[in-house]
Amino acid sequence: MIQAVVGVDLGGTSIVVGVVPSDGGAVWGLASQSTPLTGGPTAIIAQIAQMVNESVRMANRTSGATRLDVRGIGIGAPGPLDTNRGIVLFAPNLNWRDVPLRDEVARATGLPAALENDANCATLGEWWRGAARDGRFVVGITVGTGIGGGIVLDGRLYHGAADVAGEIGHTTIAYAGRRCACGNYGCLEAYASGPAIAARAREALDAGTASSIETYVGGDRSAVTAATVYQAANDGDPLALEVVTDTARYLGTGIANIVNVLNPDLVVVQGGVTLAGDRLLAPLRAEVSRRAFRPAVNACRIVPGTLTGTAGVYGAAAAFRLLHDGTL
Amino acid sequence: MIQAVVGVDLGGTSIVVGVVPSDGGAVWGLASQSTPLTGGPTAIIAQIAQMVNESVRMANRTSGATRLDVRGIGIGAPGPLDTNRGIVLFAPNLNWRDVPLRDEVARATGLPAALENDANCATLGEWWRGAARDGRFVVGITVGTGIGGGIVLDGRLYHGAADVAGEIGHTTIAYAGRRCACGNYGCLEAYASGPAIAARAREALDAGTASSIETYVGGDRSAVTAATVYQAANDGDPLALEVVTDTARYLGTGIANIVNVLNPDLVVVQGGVTLAGDRLLAPLRAEVSRRAFRPAVNACRIVPGTLTGTAGVYGAAAAFRLLHDGTL
Repeated sequence: MIQAVVGVDLGGTSIVVGVVPSDGGAVWGLASQSTPLTGGPTAIIAQIAQMVNESVRMANRTSGATRLDVRGIGIGAPGPLDTNRGIVLFAPNLNWRDVPLRDEVARATGLPAALENDANCATLGEWWRGAARDGRFVVGITVGTGIGGGIVLDGRLYHGAADVAGEIGHTTIAYAGRRCACGNYGCLEAYASGPAIAARAREALDAGTASSIETYVGGDRSAVTAATVYQAANDGDPLALEVVTDTARYLGTGIANIVNVLNPDLVVVQGGVTLAGDRLLAPLRAEVSRRAFRPAVNACRIVPGTLTGTAGVYGAAAAFRLLHDGTL
Repeated sequence: MIQAVVGVDLGGTSIVVGVVPSDGGAVWGLASQSTPLTGGPTAIIAQIAQMVNESVRMANRTSGATRLDVRGIGIGAPGPLDTNRGIVLFAPNLNWRDVPLRDEVARATGLPAALENDANCATLGEWWRGAARDGRFVVGITVGTGIGGGIVLDGRLYHGAADVAGEIGHTTIAYAGRRCACGNYGCLEAYASGPAIAARAREALDAGTASSIETYVGGDRSAVTAATVYQAANDGDPLALEVVTDTARYLGTGIANIVNVLNPDLVVVQGGVTLAGDRLLAPLRAEVSRRAFRPAVNACRIVPGTLTGTAGVYGAAAAFRLLHDGTL
């Protein structure tokens, strides 16, 4: 009998579910579906339950003769959350307020469940099974539509006083800088999130900079995304390369702050931004090196995540086990 | 018999020594002398030993009939340090490199010793006996000639991977901002340290702003210090008030970053800057409130330190006990 935990990664765009065996094997019965936003919490919870059941069925088929003992469900969700009570307090991407997600999923599936912040799960997943495996003081930074973060110290998630630790995206790198969606000025997220990367490229195009970026979107500047910029950068477009290098500097500044404060031995960069590869990582590491203390820089490896698409699933399963067993 | 530990706070300007009884009483035999910089490590270590002996003598007199059992010495020193080996790796203010301070002090006094970073000691002292007593996730920020920081999580100092965690002074609040002594641009320390506060006041005076600040220094602008600015602010001088408010905004920005990342329940502000009182703390709290996440702000009290001049001594003694007993 193989023990396993179901990991659920709930996002504003998609729901990813998989069965993670405790013995360290790869995830079974992995499935992804788009999030049924229009149906509200009821529709989303029903879909999670259906996906969990289907995933367990698939996993049982994959595991063959060996019976699976599915112990429970770990759920990664956008926050802020009340993890102790299992409640999503507020999730703008889902348009949720005060949804008792943990208990609703447990009721719908008949399995015990645990709730954890999605960025925490992504970091925990990379620490458990991915690029951050050897780290003792690990900081994860996920760059996508927003910028989230997670902190794993001595093999446990660090939550802080109110379950909201790790909000790296809303640390200030320029106190009088760009306006952020959160209402403040100069947040890292206002410079280096996917939409911010696209916005900086568009601003340069609007200012008349010649670039092949426009050809990727048929001349429709409003269709430029961060992915377009990485694509053009890979083809050597000078503006795109500049936007990527600037992004690296901004992220490097934010990460240097974390390195100076937390002195981690491992920082794992996750999310869409890793598509830019070493074009991003090399100048990012250089910026950290420039800004952070020498002993802190020397002690810290900065690596891209390796569990593309599954870090959240692994991490959600790990969060369940940490909560129930105290260890992995 | 009362158990006690000697606390030593070694700085570039002065050495403060006192005997801290383990039962929670006030420090005994407190003494402060200026640091004999010209004699190098030998002179400083000899003076520490002499001050320790004298402090123990005074404490024994104060404690009266009850015998003191002095268990050892905790030493707070500027860093970076190698705390495990008891070595000051590099201390520009002392002009030291690779000084085995812990073992030299132990040899000179015949008492076991422990070495800890000075900013860590200041925070630990406030947590043990001062304003941060109730905190579970505590960040201390000491604003003086430089800006240092310490992190106490669940009653233990957080050191990070290379003993350099808590370098809040060199977190960036303006990636293309003021040049810092460390060589970078936009460090918090370049805006809000004592010398930076004086420099901003001088710049405004040089630009022709009328202010009573000059009268405090007999018209000699080079003599303006942060203390001059606080003095003029207390007398209602508009420029001085502006400099203090700006300082509060810069510090608030740096602290908001810490609040978003570490989600502490207590931030204790220490050092000369607390002389500015609520003129500084009120706008500082407002800036944190503006920039940090609501649940993180609500969970966090920001208080001035109360152990003026002795936080480092208490903290050094606490560091010794944490190392030897694992608890306080």
